Parts: sequence; structure tokens; C-alpha cells
Amino acid sequence: MITIALDAMGGDHGVGVTVPAALEALKHQPGLKLILVGQREVIEAELGRHRAAGSDRITLHHASEVVGMDEPPAQVLRNKKDSSMRVAINLVKEGAAQAAVSAGNTGALMATARFVLKTLPGIDRPAIITTLPTMHDHVHVLDLGANVDCTPDQLLQFAIMGSILVTAVEGEARPRVGLLNVGEEDIKGNDTVKKTHELLRSSSLNYAGFVEGDEIYTGDMDVIVCDGFVGNIMLKTSEGLAHMIAHFIKQEFRRNLLTKLSALVALPVLQAFRKRVDPRRYNGATLIGLNGTVIKSHGGADVLAYEHAIMEAVAEVKNNVPARIGQALAAMAAKGEVV
Amino acid sequence: MITIALDAMGGDHGVGVTVPAALEALKHQPGLKLILVGQREVIEAELGRHRAAGSDRITLHHASEVVGMDEPPAQVLRNKKDSSMRVAINLVKEGAAQAAVSAGNTGALMATARFVLKTLPGIDRPAIITTLPTMHDHVHVLDLGANVDCTPDQLLQFAIMGSILVTAVEGEARPRVGLLNVGEEDIKGNDTVKKTHELLRSSSLNYAGFVEGDEIYTGDMDVIVCDGFVGNIMLKTSEGLAHMIAHFIKQEFRRNLLTKLSALVALPVLQAFRKRVDPRRYNGATLIGLNGTVIKSHGGADVLAYEHAIMEAVAEVKNNVPARIGQALAAMAAKGEVV
Repeated sequence: MITIALDAMGGDHGVGVTVPAALEALKHQPGLKLILVGQREVIEAELGRHRAAGSDRITLHHASEVVGMDEPPAQVLRNKKDSSMRVAINLVKEGAAQAAVSAGNTGALMATARFVLKTLPGIDRPAIITTLPTMHDHVHVLDLGANVDCTPDQLLQFAIMGSILVTAVEGEARPRVGLLNVGEEDIKGNDTVKKTHELLRSSSLNYAGFVEGDEIYTGDMDVIVCDGFVGNIMLKTSEGLAHMIAHFIKQEFRRNLLTKLSALVALPVLQAFRKRVDPRRYNGATLIGLNGTVIKSHGGADVLAYEHAIMEAVAEVKNNVPARIGQALAAMAAKGEVV
Repeated sequence: MITIALDAMGGDHGVGVTVPAALEALKHQPGLKLILVGQREVIEAELGRHRAAGSDRITLHHASEVVGMDEPPAQVLRNKKDSSMRVAINLVKEGAAQAAVSAGNTGALMATARFVLKTLPGIDRPAIITTLPTMHDHVHVLDLGANVDCTPDQLLQFAIMGSILVTAVEGEARPRVGLLNVGEEDIKGNDTVKKTHELLRSSSLNYAGFVEGDEIYTGDMDVIVCDGFVGNIMLKTSEGLAHMIAHFIKQEFRRNLLTKLSALVALPVLQAFRKRVDPRRYNGATLIGLNGTVIKSHGGADVLAYEHAIMEAVAEVKNNVPARIGQALAAMAAKGEVV
């Protein structure tokens, strides 16, 4: 049995998304229990709307406060000790749940998770990792915004964590790791990237060298490492570009009666294409490097997307990701590979 | 009359692209003269293939060497003094041409242009700027890879140069300038970005604040500033994602007979869409901040794309971009706005 705590109040849509997504996840995942954390009356009203009540598989845990989407992390940490976000993470700390999922404010979630759960031994700072679709399959990329400045040692830690996550969840024995850079030759890039390149080369990871931006989507890496500044801009740029392309396709098909008719004909194909790049299927980023599993859902996630974030939590709990990262780091430290 | 020197040997396709593109540009731009720089016999053979010969509007300037696409810039600078790239830029220096266009190796082109033409007074290092399509229109972004590490002063210089380019070429009196960051609040980002934010705020530019990655394509800025590491990764990530999306659309339409038939029906719409995001129409990045105009074409550019790079050179020469940047910098220095 796997138990996951949901920050039911988090995200742009709160219980309107988290509660129905929880009910869907329970339908699809027999061995799962969920704890809905948040304001009792709000959650109960939403459960009522779906004609669902608490059961042994879905329980309600009251938390009086809600973290705003724009609240500064330090303020949340200091003042919102009974927030649904904080209490969901406390449940992981106490062992009442094996993972927490939140669609709330990323900065506050990271600060809270780090404060409550602490980082694994050997990890300076947690990172944010997610899956992106590629031409051939998919790739894990980190850090996506938790750390705007990173040392080579931290980037090495990211590579180790990403590598172990892929091994644990996907059974890939030796994931190919790439380091994001502005060129593939050894002389390219800034000092941090060059030093990280050396660290990765002498590590026992399956390091494939520098990769350029286009190889995120067209290459064949399993893990791509970058600092959180670059990673965040890369991810958001991709979201913006995909949004623009979708908008242009729609505009062209809506131009006149003839194009509207051809849209009807092309609809099944367009839907198949859309499904393939549907970002909802990739929702659920992991705050990696903590003593426990915390999954961040996109703030604007809908029911399908949020259910995917819950499923990511299930997969990581099943495969014991934090413990395996801890073990691998200890083994590498014993060999002097990491500090 | 505008005279532009073309590095006829540069790029993946050399004269096979540069010569026919030159002939097309001359057809479309009456007041234009072009100097084809490179190996005489190679260029003459290609001109012959198009039944074109030298005229008063197209002349040939021999240069014995060719810069390889992967040759290290320092080596090119030292050893390839009679390369088509170097000689084309020399022609700008000597006043025989008002701009140079090259599809050659970016690093070598930047190093050569900087060595031969020197930077404008007040500019520490040149940057690479290009136009990208946006949901509403288009945007100029810099730096795209010339400078992997940038100081706040350099980023301010980039903002000034981008702003003046947009004013000069597009007649936009007060271009909106955004600074690429991982969030929009003042507290977000690394030290360099925060310091640049302050410099831009107290400058006389029309600074609109931080923008996130998605706003490159969906926002309404005229100029977006970032360091070359982030800019290069952003640009290449976009190329990779666009390539993947195009690949997926093609795959879905080719899946079976039915989808192939619907592709036929949707063809005009797909072509209209394709034309709209056609990267060839945006080919031609400017090495900005030099005493002279140098345009970098994509290495893999085809005839249409290369012609666009020539047209970008024409627009910048017509509008006197380097001189206007020099004047604006002098005026801002007099007011103590820049160092």
C-alpha cells in the first residue's frame, strides 16, 4: 500500500482540480491511499459534489491555512505553519505518507520541503527534475529553477540524482548523461561548465559529454544537466514556443470556410499529434535530493495533468528513489568520487 | 548605391548557395552591388552554371583560403589571413564594402570581425542579435552566443545596441526592452541579472522589466537581453523543439492512407502555417557593436535564407546602424548613463 499526501488547496484551481484528480487516481491505482490536506469544509464540499466521501482509501487531514501563489518563500516558512502545503510535507516527515504532491507556489514548496525533510547526506541543494518529450522518446532534465547559481560539485550531484532516478523508475541500467552547453567541443562554455565536464568525465556515470540546446528534443540522452537559471528559461521558452505554434496552427485552420472544412478532415490527425505532445502527460516535477518524495504539479494543471503528478509520486515511492539516491551517494563518497 | 561583400565560400553549401542567393538579391534590390569573395575559379564556375558573369553590380574578389566550419577562432585569426571570410571583412574596413555577410563558423567570424573592425567606443564586446517570430509580431534577442559570461555593464550595452537597432531599422521610437530572468519579481534571479535590472531601470531606455522564457514568443517586447550562454541555449532549444514538432506533424499525417488523404486536404493550411514560422525568413544575425556591419547567416542556410541575410545587411547599411549606435553611446556617456 502506498500513501500519498496531497496539498488539496494548492494550484490555480485548488480543490476543483485536486479532489477529482485524487478520485481518478484511486480508480486507476488499486494499491493507493490518498490524504487530502486542507480546509475541511472546502474539501468536504468538493467531495460531496463528486458524491464521494472519505473512505479507508481517501482521508481528509485538516490544515487551516493556504499558501498564496505569489507569497515569498521566507514569509510562507515563517508564517504559514498550518498551511495545506506544510502539513502535507509534515505527513511525509512523520511517515504517515510516503510522498507529497502540491500544485502550489514552487519557491515556497521547495523552501518548505527543504526545511522539513532536509537534503540527503552529500546533497548541498535539492533540484527540480522533470520529463520532456523527445523525437525518440523522452528525457529527464534538471535543474529547472531551484538553483540559479550552481557550483560544479552541485551539477555533479544533479547528474548523479538524475541518473539514479532514471535507473530506479525506468530500469535503465546506465542512463546517458549530457551536460547542457553552447557547443560540443571541450573549449566551449563558461568555467563552471568546463569544470563540471571534468568532474563528470572522471565519475562512474555514463557521461556522454556536452549537448547543445537542440539536442534536448532531438538527441538521445536520458538525463540532461544544467543550472536552474538556464533550465528554467529553457523550459519556459519551450512552453512559449509550443503555445505560439499551437496558436498559429489554430489561426490558419480558422482563416475561412475552406480552411475550417479542412480542419474537420484533419481533426483526427491533429488530435493524435496533440496527444503526443500534450504537456499534461508530462506534468509532475520532482524536488530531488530530499529525504522524501515531493512532487510539484504545474500550478495551472487540470484534472488529467494533476493525476499524472500523483502517478509520478506513486512511481517514485514504489521504486524507493530517495533511499537509492542516498545509497548511491554513500557508495560514490566511499570511492572518493563525490565530496 | 549599397555595396556588400559576401564570404562566398562560407557555410555548409558554399558557392552552391551564396552565388544563386546573390543573383536573387540583385534581382530584388535595384540599388545593390555585391562583391563575391573567395576562390576565383570556384565562384566563376558557379556563376557560369547560372549563366551569369561579373557585371558592374556583381564583382569577384579573389581570396585563396577557406575557413573550416570547426576551425578554432584563434587558429583562423593567426593562419587564415587570405580567407574569404577575412578578406570580406577587410573590404568593409577599407570602405570598399559597407557590410559583410558570412555563413561561416560563428566563432571565427566574430573573432575576425572584432580583430579587423574593432568595437565601437563604449562597447566592451560585440554581441549577436537576431529576430525571432512572436505570437504578435517579432522580437530582437541578444546575445545569442558571443559572450558566455557577461557583466551588468555589458548587458546594459546589449540593451542599448538592441534598442537602437530596432529604432534604426523599424522606426520604433521607444522599443520596449525586457531582461530575461527566471521570474518577474525583483528578488528573482542571480546577482548579474539583479544588478543589470537596476542599471536598466535608471537608464533612459524604455525598460519594461524582467521577462520569463515563455514571453520571448508570447510577449510584446521589442528587445530581449540575456547573456550569450542563456541566449544560445534558448535559441537552439527552440530550433530543436520546432524541428521535433514538425517531425511529429509529418509522422501523424503519414501514418496511413486516411491520414495521407487528410494531409492533401490540409496542405494549403499547413503550408500557410509553415511559411509563417519559416526560420529562413528570420535568417541573418547581426554581429552588433562593431565599427561596421557584419551579418552571420545560418551555416545550413539555403538560397532563400541566405538572401534574407543579405537583405538584413542592406537594411542595416541603409539605416546606418553602427554610426547610430556610436552616437547614442556617446550621448549616453555624456549624461553619465554608461561608462
